Amino acid sequence: MKVLILGGDGYLGWPTALRFKALGHDVRVLDSCVKRMVEKSEGVRPLVQLPDFGERCYYAGLDKYDFDLTDPEKGYGQLRGVFKDFEPDVIVHYAEQPSAPYSMKDVYACISTQYNNVIGTLNVLWAMRDVVPDAHLIKLGTMGEYGTPDCDIPDGYIEKEACGPSCYFDDYYCGQDPEDEDECPMAGLPFPKSPHSFYHLSKVHDSENIRFACNVWGLRATDLNQGVVYGVETKETRKDPAFRTSFHYDSIFGTVLNRFCVQAVAGHNLTVYGHGGQKRSFLNIEDTLECVRIAAENPPEKGRMRVFNQFTEIFSIIELAKLVQEEGEKVLGRRVYIECLNNPRSEQEDHYYNPSNKGLLGLGLKPKVLSGGVLRGIIGYIDRYHDGIDKKNIMPKVTWK
Amino acid sequence: MKVLILGGDGYLGWPTALRFKALGHDVRVLDSCVKRMVEKSEGVRPLVQLPDFGERCYYAGLDKYDFDLTDPEKGYGQLRGVFKDFEPDVIVHYAEQPSAPYSMKDVYACISTQYNNVIGTLNVLWAMRDVVPDAHLIKLGTMGEYGTPDCDIPDGYIEKEACGPSCYFDDYYCGQDPEDEDECPMAGLPFPKSPHSFYHLSKVHDSENIRFACNVWGLRATDLNQGVVYGVETKETRKDPAFRTSFHYDSIFGTVLNRFCVQAVAGHNLTVYGHGGQKRSFLNIEDTLECVRIAAENPPEKGRMRVFNQFTEIFSIIELAKLVQEEGEKVLGRRVYIECLNNPRSEQEDHYYNPSNKGLLGLGLKPKVLSGGVLRGIIGYIDRYHDGIDKKNIMPKVTWK
Repeated sequence: MKVLILGGDGYLGWPTALRFKALGHDVRVLDSCVKRMVEKSEGVRPLVQLPDFGERCYYAGLDKYDFDLTDPEKGYGQLRGVFKDFEPDVIVHYAEQPSAPYSMKDVYACISTQYNNVIGTLNVLWAMRDVVPDAHLIKLGTMGEYGTPDCDIPDGYIEKEACGPSCYFDDYYCGQDPEDEDECPMAGLPFPKSPHSFYHLSKVHDSENIRFACNVWGLRATDLNQGVVYGVETKETRKDPAFRTSFHYDSIFGTVLNRFCVQAVAGHNLTVYGHGGQKRSFLNIEDTLECVRIAAENPPEKGRMRVFNQFTEIFSIIELAKLVQEEGEKVLGRRVYIECLNNPRSEQEDHYYNPSNKGLLGLGLKPKVLSGGVLRGIIGYIDRYHDGIDKKNIMPKVTWK
Repeated sequence: MKVLILGGDGYLGWPTALRFKALGHDVRVLDSCVKRMVEKSEGVRPLVQLPDFGERCYYAGLDKYDFDLTDPEKGYGQLRGVFKDFEPDVIVHYAEQPSAPYSMKDVYACISTQYNNVIGTLNVLWAMRDVVPDAHLIKLGTMGEYGTPDCDIPDGYIEKEACGPSCYFDDYYCGQDPEDEDECPMAGLPFPKSPHSFYHLSKVHDSENIRFACNVWGLRATDLNQGVVYGVETKETRKDPAFRTSFHYDSIFGTVLNRFCVQAVAGHNLTVYGHGGQKRSFLNIEDTLECVRIAAENPPEKGRMRVFNQFTEIFSIIELAKLVQEEGEKVLGRRVYIECLNNPRSEQEDHYYNPSNKGLLGLGLKPKVLSGGVLRGIIGYIDRYHDGIDKKNIMPKVTWK
């Protein structure tokens, strides 16, 4: 397959490119490196400094494009050129501003987040329509789009049995139209979203735009609503120091489990937001690559935006903190403490949470679960680079109110 | 009340401002007049030429602001200034690119539509948060956000009885959890949208952003999902030629019933898209003003985005064409013909359609229905200005494919 990775310089885009290359596919990467600029302006840096984008692509033998696909004047034309030149079968779209706290910082960061993500995706959709209408768009969304509703969360669309968990299997006539007595009248419509931040909202807007483009233009897409990713390396990034991926632990770009592991190594308390009862879905960075591979090898029919919830396990934040505490103490040989902060976010801390991930499991995903060994591996890796930890960027700086 | 009208130069914004002023409120209007520029670049013009924005405000005794609230750098700061200066109780937000065909024209028009609408609304939300957090935002959305699903459409949120029309009233146990055997498990979540165009999508994005801002910041808002508006004048616009409102019939900015009436006057066939079985919700321009007044006088509590479906009647397009044909022949004294074109849009032409409008009816809306007399009044008005009709802009130019 010809695989084009948009956002190929990022935490996930880079190892995804290496993985598809290792699998023997023809891979090219595109990135404007705007995130590296935002890191500088926010005063944060990854744990380990990376070669610049051109350099790492050269080392890895990856062809690259380095323009800004969100440019309202030139983005579409440049993408057209790339699509004509390369004729990708699969377009994996990671090229988005990835931080919820950044999007809540102020009006300008909020606007730049929605602008970057929504306009970039529109350029991709129009250029696909005009040049590669048969290609398969794999778009990264987030489980945070759903929020935490008081009901089960399906893979993107309301299911027939949504009107009640047992209704589907029940013989009693429940008062609905006899013809579809087993079916929720809203079956097939997109499951309603209740996103957590302006960043998560941008992903919701993307999903709506993509679904419409599939319906109207006959494009095909897979929307991967991804849980919180953890992990520092993959099979391919381990092979050479130049192949390492970006790893963030700061309060802007770091995800929670990665941040806890860095805090343990730095001798910092593990900072739980609120009492930590909020539940989230998680997956190992290796499983991100697996899910994208599975989606790419099993494209949906034309005209359809398929949705998969992309996670392997569910934990509450306090559970995670306790796991890191336990394994951290083993690896580091000293006490690790947990501290509950006033929650800077606006989120429920006690709630029902039951999302489905049956779509990807059905296509053969074998989850790599969060074992003690996996956690000790991450903490051990970070400990080797503990000199790179910048303690002043660990505590949250942005509040939702 | 202090009422600020965003988009006060438009078809609906202008008469809304006149109405609130006539009711004795303190009214100011804001518009960048970007729509007048787009009209020029698209080569279309309203039926009757209007004074420029400053002039008509001067005649009508309305204070005005004329900057671009969608500006990513200055829009927020300028809005802050207006909110500090005027301290509005109610902000009526019409300041959006209003055309579905325009948004489907090409990638640039699509991007400018979503940019204009989404970023403008984000600036309004942040400036409200920072300056007038108790004000009431009344935002105009559209019934086209819902599309035409195979189930009833509630006022914005999924209702308890959504799992089946009779389930709510039925004594039989239908297999759901006994505690909420009568309730849809998704009750309270936003009803899923299936919008018709990138324009309609921009309104969906707005609604999501507004609902989040209400939840997180405690703002209050009313989202008015408006049907297709028809009519040429209101009680106030009739009083002076300088008070007339913009009236479009072209394929970019004209709405369907207005366009049919102009076609009848121009001796043009009434152009039905497809076989005309598509059903839409409609309301008289007088009822738009009534609905906005009702919303303004009955604000929701803080922290809530209330949704009302704003329409009074449902017609299929072919029914409307036949009504215009019948009344047109009476007024004009000659035959009026109907022509079914290949549908330039992507839409269902045979479908279920049962939206609710009980929210506004419950607050006292008395619908002004589409009678023969009302239609003859519109056709008669247009006939007086028939010299202004530009026949080359009547046929559709943009297709959805």
